[in-house]
Amino acid sequence: MNNSVLRYILGYVLKIESILLLFPCLVAVIYKETEGIYYLFSVFVCGILGILLTLKKPSSFVFYLKEGSIATALSWIVISIFGAVPFYLTGEIPSFTDALFETISGFTTTGASILSDVEALSHCSLFWRSFTHWIGGMGVLVFLLAIIPLSGGSQFNLMRAESPGPSVGKLVPKIRTTARLLYVIYFGMTLIQIIFMLAGGLNLFDTLTITFGTAGTGGFGIKNSSIGEYSPYIQWIVAIFMFLFGVNFNVYYFLIYRKWRKALNMEEVHTYFIIVIVSSGIIFFNILDTMHSASDALRHAFFQVSTLITSTGFSTVDFNLWSQTSKTVLVMVMFIGACAGSTGGGIKVSRIIILFKTIKKELISYIHPKSIMKIKMDGKPIERDVVRATNVYFVTFTVIFSLSVLVISFDDKDLVTNFTAVLATINNMGPGFEGVGPTQNFGHFSILSKFVLMFDMLAGRLELFPLLLLFHPSIWKELITRKKPVIKKN
Amino acid sequence: MNNSVLRYILGYVLKIESILLLFPCLVAVIYKETEGIYYLFSVFVCGILGILLTLKKPSSFVFYLKEGSIATALSWIVISIFGAVPFYLTGEIPSFTDALFETISGFTTTGASILSDVEALSHCSLFWRSFTHWIGGMGVLVFLLAIIPLSGGSQFNLMRAESPGPSVGKLVPKIRTTARLLYVIYFGMTLIQIIFMLAGGLNLFDTLTITFGTAGTGGFGIKNSSIGEYSPYIQWIVAIFMFLFGVNFNVYYFLIYRKWRKALNMEEVHTYFIIVIVSSGIIFFNILDTMHSASDALRHAFFQVSTLITSTGFSTVDFNLWSQTSKTVLVMVMFIGACAGSTGGGIKVSRIIILFKTIKKELISYIHPKSIMKIKMDGKPIERDVVRATNVYFVTFTVIFSLSVLVISFDDKDLVTNFTAVLATINNMGPGFEGVGPTQNFGHFSILSKFVLMFDMLAGRLELFPLLLLFHPSIWKELITRKKPVIKKN
Repeated sequence: MNNSVLRYILGYVLKIESILLLFPCLVAVIYKETEGIYYLFSVFVCGILGILLTLKKPSSFVFYLKEGSIATALSWIVISIFGAVPFYLTGEIPSFTDALFETISGFTTTGASILSDVEALSHCSLFWRSFTHWIGGMGVLVFLLAIIPLSGGSQFNLMRAESPGPSVGKLVPKIRTTARLLYVIYFGMTLIQIIFMLAGGLNLFDTLTITFGTAGTGGFGIKNSSIGEYSPYIQWIVAIFMFLFGVNFNVYYFLIYRKWRKALNMEEVHTYFIIVIVSSGIIFFNILDTMHSASDALRHAFFQVSTLITSTGFSTVDFNLWSQTSKTVLVMVMFIGACAGSTGGGIKVSRIIILFKTIKKELISYIHPKSIMKIKMDGKPIERDVVRATNVYFVTFTVIFSLSVLVISFDDKDLVTNFTAVLATINNMGPGFEGVGPTQNFGHFSILSKFVLMFDMLAGRLELFPLLLLFHPSIWKELITRKKPVIKKN
Repeated sequence: MNNSVLRYILGYVLKIESILLLFPCLVAVIYKETEGIYYLFSVFVCGILGILLTLKKPSSFVFYLKEGSIATALSWIVISIFGAVPFYLTGEIPSFTDALFETISGFTTTGASILSDVEALSHCSLFWRSFTHWIGGMGVLVFLLAIIPLSGGSQFNLMRAESPGPSVGKLVPKIRTTARLLYVIYFGMTLIQIIFMLAGGLNLFDTLTITFGTAGTGGFGIKNSSIGEYSPYIQWIVAIFMFLFGVNFNVYYFLIYRKWRKALNMEEVHTYFIIVIVSSGIIFFNILDTMHSASDALRHAFFQVSTLITSTGFSTVDFNLWSQTSKTVLVMVMFIGACAGSTGGGIKVSRIIILFKTIKKELISYIHPKSIMKIKMDGKPIERDVVRATNVYFVTFTVIFSLSVLVISFDDKDLVTNFTAVLATINNMGPGFEGVGPTQNFGHFSILSKFVLMFDMLAGRLELFPLLLLFHPSIWKELITRKKPVIKKN
């Protein structure tokens, strides 16, 4: 295990967090809030620790998928722990477990909250809370890749561990350029949304916080009613941008470089559009009777589908009160999730497509036992390894899911609450149904359950294996014994 | 497609059903019930149709996995339709949909009922209802294999389509002998249970019907309170035998032939024991406060775990009223199911083991990317194809599961009812929670939902693919155009 590069990366992550924490300080200055002092304190703590850890350059920048996964998992844990400090110090979240829950929920873009009264928070804390979504949306390490030099394979191993989806698409041959391009697109789209929001007459603070929640598909609101009390115009803008941030970012890359055909022919994106249209349609007809007008019904239907398929978790109505059909459709889109290579969570549309194609292939193997059929996506055959990994991912997902439901069931809440609490956290969604519905929060769970749900949020964001790896005994042995990596020759 | 052999098999199945229908006729004679006349009518209908279909011997007895699957799926549908006729004709189940539901539930050993008052049925109908469990438990076609001559590969393809579990184990090199051995063990164990039940002072009718439900792991009761009003002794006997019928039958084969080491070293059976002990333990401590005595708590805990892990579905208490922890444990054992090669349903313990080993293998591939690890069971490596099929099975299971929940959610019942109704049918269990809890029934679903649940019962019993194959258009084309099988040479 290349421990020195691990230390170096963690140090760099802390330095970045230190800089990011300056923004809430600025907000505190503008609103003249004394809570800002704790954010400034955190800036210094992260900064000093970061500088200390990066003083000595690592002996070698080479590392393997194992180190990439471990670096990613540890970075996310470290950034969450230090990000939780100001919430705790300001006294706005008196329990550190709760503060950590809220921060992990922020960075993983889950948006599940333990707060019952969001509006009681200071502006700087509200800002930091939403800002963590934006930071977590594109990924901390993708940002790192854009700025620090690592040798080729190492970069890829970091990116593979952090990026959502069954396989990592490099937009351009160089990973570093890919990472930069992704951030440019992310930044650009965020800016466009800000302009649209401001054009609707919204103030800058609300615009920024809501946009951060949309772009990272996070879903922390700054009002107790989430997005419910904003104008229909704002609701439409948020709904549309959530939908757009759930599209595979490759599409935007292709659009920028005018590769129209490639942009329009992505199977995953087609499927994503169809799922959103069909789901919104079913819910639209299902809730039509209960709404004032058809346009209201359409807005609420599209908003809720868009927010749940992208795992954002904003809400405009209490969908917990809708009919069972609508709720079942919502649960299904929660599972499906957004496109791979987007900021959204869930299982991902491309994985669902691969799963369905696997089933089809199996059926055909009954009919023509000797035929050899390759599973294709966008006309190109998918590597056997990707198909296998997708099946394994799905199996692992279900196992973690079931065990989590089992453990939190010791709190003796109803099955729907337990089931959707796990679903909402592992898919980085936010709200569920019943006890964790859009008007409820996660504060009432026991500490054990909260840690299980924190694990689920991180596992969901890092796509299970990097985090699971931390629980493998041989990894700890390697970390402690500081074994040097053995370079294998092929 | 070798249509002539399909016709021949279906004809044979009908002839067997005709003979089996003689038993309820006998019961009607003993109890002097006029309903018997309708059973006699069904005997003649099945018999005549069966004789007509088997008049002409098929030109060739060779067929492939495809035909094996189709023959199995069609046989189960045909036997269910004809088995439902007497229920409908006697007027005891006035709707044919309901009669079909009850019969499919019987043959697939599900035990989900649409009847609200079981005790109102005539003795012959009660007998036939429980008898279908016993017939379905070991499989209709396994019986067929034991009596009609098919060439080697064809037998294996039939057996593979009907037998539960990830791979078919031949006890002895000859399939026909294997099938006979299985029936001998099945018959023998049934007989032993009957003796134990009679020794407890139970009358013959109750003994037979309950034993049929136990042996087939079906779960139709003949009392509205299921097994609740019988003595603790009877409850213990039923609990223990349910557990025993959920053990891989290979164990009994090894025991008979005194291969002690092989019998005691089956990994799947060890895991099955551990799961039952741990689950019963958790529930025991969880319900201890609410019971009169520790022995009551132990009996009810073990009984409920045993009934749900083997997918039998008898009950001694209304476990819907238990705490959420106990209910979550029960839901989990429902999913896991019994051992492969037993009469029990569910995903099967061996598949769960393979899934966990797959996850472990994936984790290790992160740590040692170049290592090649084989997944082993009982010390022997599992074929790659079995692992792949297990993953695909699991994925398909989840997809059918989700779509079924979606469709029956149009009935607008609560999520727990919908979720556990599908779980209880696809795993051939019987009762679920809430609206389909042990004191409720399935009569309140719409006709569409009932058909979805019937599909799930058959899909669960036939392990998904044979039934799904029926929905593939190319199969219908072949069935209608009567294309001769093309013999491929390797």
